[in-house]
Amino acid sequence: MLPQIVEAIGLVAAFCTTVSFIPQAVKTIRTRNTSGISLGMYVLFTTGTLCWFIYGLLSHSLPVTFANGVTLIFAGIVLFYKIRYH
Amino acid sequence: MLPQIVEAIGLVAAFCTTVSFIPQAVKTIRTRNTSGISLGMYVLFTTGTLCWFIYGLLSHSLPVTFANGVTLIFAGIVLFYKIRYH
Repeated sequence: MLPQIVEAIGLVAAFCTTVSFIPQAVKTIRTRNTSGISLGMYVLFTTGTLCWFIYGLLSHSLPVTFANGVTLIFAGIVLFYKIRYH
Repeated sequence: MLPQIVEAIGLVAAFCTTVSFIPQAVKTIRTRNTSGISLGMYVLFTTGTLCWFIYGLLSHSLPVTFANGVTLIFAGIVLFYKIRYH
């Protein structure tokens, strides 16, 4: 396949997974309903995203640092509400 | 910092974000409670993970393909339940 198409698929992938936690954070802030949300998931995911962020900084990768910095903020908000309104 | 430490942080990051959707999928299957879960998040995240999976296949990256293949299964289960028990 054309390398431009492969690159475009990668960029769509990065965009979707990076911004996906924004609607979840907005919903959680508005409703404070975290009953269906798994604490284990958000502990693992936030830890993982923080490690990706540190890995990005240490390996001087701007895309890894930026994408995971954005995700970390919104996943962190959901984790905070899950613990706060458990 | 030592490159082995940087690599170890990256591996912990990959492990955490890959397996994080497993406890969410288990919780959702058991309780069928998806009220606090954002449909927008799971549509975006599952689309993104599918694109990462295709990108991994097309760019011949085993880690990208494998990690996103695993995440796709469990995020896909949560999306299915969210739509089914909306």
